Amino acid sequence: MTTKKVGVLLSGCGVFDGAEIHEAVLTLLYLDQQGAEVVCMAPDINQAHVINHLTQEEMDPPRNVLVEAARIARGEIKDLADITADQIDALILPGGFGAAKNLSEFAFKGPESSVNSQVKQLLEAMVLAGKPIGALCIAPATVGMALKDMKPLMTVGKEEGVIGALAAIGVKHQLCAVDEIAVDEAHKIVTTPAYMLGPGIKDVGAGIEKLVKKVLSMT
Amino acid sequence: MTTKKVGVLLSGCGVFDGAEIHEAVLTLLYLDQQGAEVVCMAPDINQAHVINHLTQEEMDPPRNVLVEAARIARGEIKDLADITADQIDALILPGGFGAAKNLSEFAFKGPESSVNSQVKQLLEAMVLAGKPIGALCIAPATVGMALKDMKPLMTVGKEEGVIGALAAIGVKHQLCAVDEIAVDEAHKIVTTPAYMLGPGIKDVGAGIEKLVKKVLSMT
Repeated sequence: MTTKKVGVLLSGCGVFDGAEIHEAVLTLLYLDQQGAEVVCMAPDINQAHVINHLTQEEMDPPRNVLVEAARIARGEIKDLADITADQIDALILPGGFGAAKNLSEFAFKGPESSVNSQVKQLLEAMVLAGKPIGALCIAPATVGMALKDMKPLMTVGKEEGVIGALAAIGVKHQLCAVDEIAVDEAHKIVTTPAYMLGPGIKDVGAGIEKLVKKVLSMT
Repeated sequence: MTTKKVGVLLSGCGVFDGAEIHEAVLTLLYLDQQGAEVVCMAPDINQAHVINHLTQEEMDPPRNVLVEAARIARGEIKDLADITADQIDALILPGGFGAAKNLSEFAFKGPESSVNSQVKQLLEAMVLAGKPIGALCIAPATVGMALKDMKPLMTVGKEEGVIGALAAIGVKHQLCAVDEIAVDEAHKIVTTPAYMLGPGIKDVGAGIEKLVKKVLSMT
């Protein structure tokens, strides 16, 4: 069996302004356990803002998404600008507010938000190439914004504001428990609620493990 | 069965200047899977320095260990100054250079280094109370420095410089594979090499899971 190369698209390092760390690390764990080769990547842009995770207040100075994401990747990370869909067999986006603040503007502008152009290009190219995409937690909002013309099916927790904002752009929503996945077979998009539901790391881990296995099965 | 309360002592957020993120998250995962209650903690001090994890160069401005560790803990973290041994049943220290740069000076001064006084006090109090301590990766170096008068038995990978520095202060060393643990039954200290050996997250995960189970069995 050929080793599958799976891109993991990070959006910083920390739930409130970057990639959710538990979700990112468990994605890496289950990919490694399944024998996949991981390619971590992030855009070389400043974070929308920096949040002190102790006080939840904004702090200075700005931080760079790629530089901070490198913490999760132990330095082994590529600039998203250098990644094309032909280099990977699948792509997974962990959640965290960074996925909806740095990869798109969804957390600030909802259905009116734009998506980072590199992120949008890669997502579109993956679908066109018939390669699967996995998205955790709030990351499906950004994937949904990028691919709204396809009207994908996703799960994104149970907050009515979020579900409504996605319905407004044509995304179909499926309620899932934290240990479940929603599968859009037509577009090969797999999603799990993760910390949109929680409550704990073992709960989100169960859903992430299922997502990783399903994504790999679709490569 | 009473729920066990386990302290997880973090030293920042990132392998080169803080807590190793994979090791910290997997510690939290396996503790949750075993039904333990987690109390994350870190000292309210500045990091020894800040390393850009993309370029490995130092960067400005300074960062605070407690504030950065809060990223791994999703904001649920206590100031180490407010923690005493009677509040927890066990204590685990993930690795990462932060464990040997911020919790002690081991990475800079080897056997001549001092240990953060709050860290030293808590470690001594845990041993005195007969409560188990787990330490991953390079963290055993700081635990060994703090408890050197007890001449504890530990594993700390296979780098001769590190093993030699610990031998110089009387720490007994046991070579372990990455999926193994060293157990000092007399002092209830459990250690595993984690990323001192690696190579991958699934490998370090196997050792961390064993460590968590052993530590809990000693409470």
